[in-house]
Amino acid sequence: MGSEPTKVMVAVNGSTIKEYPHPSISSKRAFEWTLEKIVRSNTSDFKILLLHVQVTDEDGFDDVDSVYASPDDFRSMRETNKAKGLHLLEFFVKKCHEIGVACEAWIKIGDPKDVICKEVTRVQPDFLVVGSRGLGRFQKVFVGTVSAFCVKHAECPVLTIKRNPDETPSDLADD
Amino acid sequence: MGSEPTKVMVAVNGSTIKEYPHPSISSKRAFEWTLEKIVRSNTSDFKILLLHVQVTDEDGFDDVDSVYASPDDFRSMRETNKAKGLHLLEFFVKKCHEIGVACEAWIKIGDPKDVICKEVTRVQPDFLVVGSRGLGRFQKVFVGTVSAFCVKHAECPVLTIKRNPDETPSDLADD
Repeated sequence: MGSEPTKVMVAVNGSTIKEYPHPSISSKRAFEWTLEKIVRSNTSDFKILLLHVQVTDEDGFDDVDSVYASPDDFRSMRETNKAKGLHLLEFFVKKCHEIGVACEAWIKIGDPKDVICKEVTRVQPDFLVVGSRGLGRFQKVFVGTVSAFCVKHAECPVLTIKRNPDETPSDLADD
Repeated sequence: MGSEPTKVMVAVNGSTIKEYPHPSISSKRAFEWTLEKIVRSNTSDFKILLLHVQVTDEDGFDDVDSVYASPDDFRSMRETNKAKGLHLLEFFVKKCHEIGVACEAWIKIGDPKDVICKEVTRVQPDFLVVGSRGLGRFQKVFVGTVSAFCVKHAECPVLTIKRNPDETPSDLADD
């Protein structure tokens, strides 16, 4: 029981239903649950590390009406995308400040499951929190699940938090 | 942030290496890690619920030299077994008392993964802690993994904690 705070890495991502800077149902739930049930009022005992992994290819599809005529256009798209990522992180950082728990937040680009596990190895949090959509076996084949991969491969304990039944959208793959 | 303590169910089992009432490497590690990193010194904010599931058939093999001549012999075997289970729980309850965190402990008989998920539904802890041997895909087919089943099926968040590399026995299935 040292005096160092427990470092909690929370992986957060954007919603597939609302527009991008909105947090996904599962990452919002995982984050809020962690504050309520683990951190509680002992804010000086914990530090929240917020990691958002951007999937570049997929996000490019947001801009279907855009015309890309020069390398600058792509740079500008990447910057817009980065701004949305920062806006997403702002939501979580604000909540941490409201309750007075220390936090850090950063963005990485790549395949979320791989990047999360690499960041765990690099940053060495005490544990990792991941939201889960609670998909069945058949759905997993098509949309993959980041949480199951992290439980298996992350080099730290992993807390998996499913969405509440009443928050679950009709298409389970949505979030 | 209500005043109700966070209820943490920890599934514990016996060692396959040392004699039965000794805790397994993975459940001892999961329990101690939870006290150190989650409960910390905030003992009044948490309540530990210790569940030990006994696998009757398997445990019967401990008594290969015994002769069973009457129903009473089986009853006595079951009672010896129960005593060992209580002895296992005593290890964990003692540690809780040492640091001053409230706890409850009980034994159930059956298939651990099913019983743990049923007890989660019945008791409704805030989250479940399970130790994991960190088995690969091939090994899982033969020995099964309780932790992966619980992450998928338990009706509460699940914290999966692997053994430390330096505690891992040469046969990964051992614990």
